[in-house]
Amino acid sequence: MPYIPLDEKLPGITGLLNYRKDTALPIRELTQILLRGKSTLSEAEREMIASLVSFGNKCSFCTAAHTAATDHLLGESNTSKMVKDDLATAPVSDKMKTLLTIASAVQVSGKNVTPVMIDNAKKKGATDLEIHDTVLIAALFSLYNRYVDGLASVTPADPAFYDRLATILVKNGYLPSENRYASLSS
Amino acid sequence: MPYIPLDEKLPGITGLLNYRKDTALPIRELTQILLRGKSTLSEAEREMIASLVSFGNKCSFCTAAHTAATDHLLGESNTSKMVKDDLATAPVSDKMKTLLTIASAVQVSGKNVTPVMIDNAKKKGATDLEIHDTVLIAALFSLYNRYVDGLASVTPADPAFYDRLATILVKNGYLPSENRYASLSS
Repeated sequence: MPYIPLDEKLPGITGLLNYRKDTALPIRELTQILLRGKSTLSEAEREMIASLVSFGNKCSFCTAAHTAATDHLLGESNTSKMVKDDLATAPVSDKMKTLLTIASAVQVSGKNVTPVMIDNAKKKGATDLEIHDTVLIAALFSLYNRYVDGLASVTPADPAFYDRLATILVKNGYLPSENRYASLSS
Repeated sequence: MPYIPLDEKLPGITGLLNYRKDTALPIRELTQILLRGKSTLSEAEREMIASLVSFGNKCSFCTAAHTAATDHLLGESNTSKMVKDDLATAPVSDKMKTLLTIASAVQVSGKNVTPVMIDNAKKKGATDLEIHDTVLIAALFSLYNRYVDGLASVTPADPAFYDRLATILVKNGYLPSENRYASLSS
């Protein structure tokens, strides 16, 4: 049971973003820019960073939600699974491997990012902006994971829930909208 | 040296917020609402949460900046020092001690917040919103600390720098403004 009164129909982050809408708006806007805005990283690649960081933080809700979003965007579920199970052999580009390595370091501590990690990313063609965005996405999900678990929001067990949520995230993005979560509890 | 090209005159978070202004805006807005918006927690109490989390994450820039902001708001530097050195005997309210305990747990992991911690906070008079805001401020500074250190932004050694920065943060808050940091390098 959540530590504060949240709408029972809105599990995980959805109830928290509904609890305080004035703080929710800039969080949503930042996420929309980073995960759906113009970028040389694909939406699937950016969702992958979100899911790997959430996985590292053992945030079940965020891991399931952003893994499902990645899978929807890619049309398969093998890549997101491999990225979490064994990044070295995962079917992603060498550049993405270096960026996901940086994201995993940030998940633990910003101080864990080393010059060698940055050098490897640059050698594989990562731009300064891609490195910046990778660090900021990893930092943002370090916020989300703590927000979701720190207030003990509900984590649905049914995979179908995350499939419905991923449909919303892929189709509508992260900005607020009327009846945004109407299809969630169906 | 930072991992990406940042304005040399803007150390720590200031250069990062200047590097990508579209992502900076919602980060600034969220911070303004949480640390300067209407609240039953004082501005000093909220800055204290920010500095304790930054201290836990060993982010020297953020710790120094928000400790200086706390000290400016309180007109003394003993309280912020005691909160970091020995929370149990620090001259803050019992309610603040329970909220700072929750913030320290969130800094490590959202999962480290326990029902007992929440119960203690409620017994000392903390409201649901104060608990919510404490968790979200701690989560936000978990983002900031990773952003600042993950890109190896510069940490000035001179305490006078943080004194100047704190003057800006206390007087102007966190929203962007023209020549915001003009007085920083003076």
